Amino acid sequence: MGNRNSVASPASGQTRGSANPGSPAALDASKLSSTLAKTLKPLQPIETLRFGQTFSDHMIVATYDPELGWSAPEVKPYGPITLDPQCSCFQYGGNVFEGMKAYLGPDGKARLFRPDMNMRRMEKSCARLALPPIDGDVVLELIKHLVNVEKRWIPKESGYSLYIRPTVIATRPGLGVTASDHAMLYILASPTGPYFARPVSLLAVSENVRAWPGGTGGHKVAGNYSPGFLPQRAAAEKGYDQILWLFGDDRRVTEAGAMNFFVVVKRDDEDGVDLITAPLDGTILPGVTRASCLALAGDPEFHQEISMRLHPQEMVYTMSDLAKWSSEGKLLEALAIGTAVIVGPCNRIGFEGKDIVIPGDGMGPVGTAIRKKILDIQEGRTEWKGWGVVCA
Amino acid sequence: MGNRNSVASPASGQTRGSANPGSPAALDASKLSSTLAKTLKPLQPIETLRFGQTFSDHMIVATYDPELGWSAPEVKPYGPITLDPQCSCFQYGGNVFEGMKAYLGPDGKARLFRPDMNMRRMEKSCARLALPPIDGDVVLELIKHLVNVEKRWIPKESGYSLYIRPTVIATRPGLGVTASDHAMLYILASPTGPYFARPVSLLAVSENVRAWPGGTGGHKVAGNYSPGFLPQRAAAEKGYDQILWLFGDDRRVTEAGAMNFFVVVKRDDEDGVDLITAPLDGTILPGVTRASCLALAGDPEFHQEISMRLHPQEMVYTMSDLAKWSSEGKLLEALAIGTAVIVGPCNRIGFEGKDIVIPGDGMGPVGTAIRKKILDIQEGRTEWKGWGVVCA
Repeated sequence: MGNRNSVASPASGQTRGSANPGSPAALDASKLSSTLAKTLKPLQPIETLRFGQTFSDHMIVATYDPELGWSAPEVKPYGPITLDPQCSCFQYGGNVFEGMKAYLGPDGKARLFRPDMNMRRMEKSCARLALPPIDGDVVLELIKHLVNVEKRWIPKESGYSLYIRPTVIATRPGLGVTASDHAMLYILASPTGPYFARPVSLLAVSENVRAWPGGTGGHKVAGNYSPGFLPQRAAAEKGYDQILWLFGDDRRVTEAGAMNFFVVVKRDDEDGVDLITAPLDGTILPGVTRASCLALAGDPEFHQEISMRLHPQEMVYTMSDLAKWSSEGKLLEALAIGTAVIVGPCNRIGFEGKDIVIPGDGMGPVGTAIRKKILDIQEGRTEWKGWGVVCA
Repeated sequence: MGNRNSVASPASGQTRGSANPGSPAALDASKLSSTLAKTLKPLQPIETLRFGQTFSDHMIVATYDPELGWSAPEVKPYGPITLDPQCSCFQYGGNVFEGMKAYLGPDGKARLFRPDMNMRRMEKSCARLALPPIDGDVVLELIKHLVNVEKRWIPKESGYSLYIRPTVIATRPGLGVTASDHAMLYILASPTGPYFARPVSLLAVSENVRAWPGGTGGHKVAGNYSPGFLPQRAAAEKGYDQILWLFGDDRRVTEAGAMNFFVVVKRDDEDGVDLITAPLDGTILPGVTRASCLALAGDPEFHQEISMRLHPQEMVYTMSDLAKWSSEGKLLEALAIGTAVIVGPCNRIGFEGKDIVIPGDGMGPVGTAIRKKILDIQEGRTEWKGWGVVCA
């Protein structure tokens, strides 16, 4: 899988994983070929990095054809892709993606954080949009390979990482309104720093709705995101950073921007605090960081480590609940949770003309402890239940 | 706008509509340049045409840059487009499209059907996804130009047309989850015949939801379509052609596949029939054919022409209503309505293990009369309230 030429046949223009015409080839990492960039880009000073703006030298690409199956994946110089304008990805959506970060540990090894969870989610996202089947374990092999090829792009500084963006797009040519039986997988790598350093303010919105039961809000599909841009712009004009998405007549709290959302609430029984987030009812993205926060919050070993009692609560809660907890002094922290942000503070929530102000600018001991723990695992300073996965 | 070379500057690679750097240029049809195909494709026998599979020789393309605005539009040979894989159109959706048909009249002129309605909807779709602003009147000028360039592609046979697909895609480079300040407009042309000749069967589905209030179901955006592919596949496995999308606990009837849906119901007062469809509450695409059916149904001049009394009804109605009307013998016709299909029959609706069977295979005198009227207007055999617009 070094710097050798692609063995693509000139006739087909593609190497296929199988010569059997009756059985579409599965994605096969052992078939990976590499065409490395002739000139490598200079690394960018980390203080000038902005999320998703700088890309490494290479990407990995594979394509799916309904008869041939998956092509042999290829490492190639990062660059444009060429597609027919009739393709399903432009006309009918049908694109899915994942977000992951590779960190450099003190041992000099590159690590991913619970990548198996991203891969299972990617498989489900593809299935939800009726895209061709894809084996996440093979995608993970390809990701690890790309991380190693691009290791010089992983910043050494804490909080910085190489953000990995596996993407599957629907490439069926034709305007018929039907599932795409063609696809392209590509994996991009982008060095990145802390997503936002300052606390974010949220505007709670119910006139626009991010997701609905029976829709695709529980999957990581491209079409979930663009409908949020207009409400986001309106929120910015009112002085808020992000939307807090509500759902239903009872104004249930769901997600914050493109992130999961947690609140830390003091318990009536004085037995520590509740870490509350909305349940996975199909309107909530099953975030990897979300699942990790809940797992840590329910883990006695972690409680001992941080000398706090946490109670993970996946439950329906509403703006009325937030307002009540706030007025009673029980609302202690408000946290935006996601791969890019990890754990970030939310300092106020605008709703019906008033602001719910979160003490301590949103982040307190719970958010701080969870963030530190996850970053320690991600950056390889601590071993924890196999969550940090070395790109060997 | 003939066959002259583009005057694009080699430095920028693009001709811009304005030299003023402070004011992004508006889309300007008078700046259109043409690079015509050196060899024209042979026309395909019409009996082999399948919807959206064959494309004409040329397309029109223009791009938007936040500083420069819209580039000078260009007629160029139909062919692939090249984009950065980080583009918003792949990562976050943000694509919109329109569907229109150009017909050849007995006077040899090419006509569009109420294209102003498509253009207003396209402007709204772009605004809903926070895409750069686009002037639909200018897009219409470009469409008319393309139709005339591709006139030989319009089949002369009744029911056949040149399907026009204006598309706007989000081309902002970068993974930041924010509105795309870059875009590409392209207009494709595809000769097409009757969308489906035989009646379609529908499976009523409530476990998947096409659209919801506060979402994007009332706009023509790419991301509305791919979430329907999996339910559609499941329906096909059960022996149904398309989904009848329901909404809410009361199982309201909304749309059929990617089409509007109408039923013809006998009135209690014996004063003709009701033509019933769901109201535009944000979950229903405001179809051009839908609006035209409703307008005809409410027009005394049309009533006189067809010697029938019709009452257009935009109202909430449920599967219980359908079942009741069916059992009472009042459910006379069930019609799928859209640009591609025009007016097509639905012969049965599966729901909770039973079929509601529509008499006459779905289509009766009302659907037949409306279909004939619309096709007469589209094909230029009759003049009606300015609905047929000649591509002059």
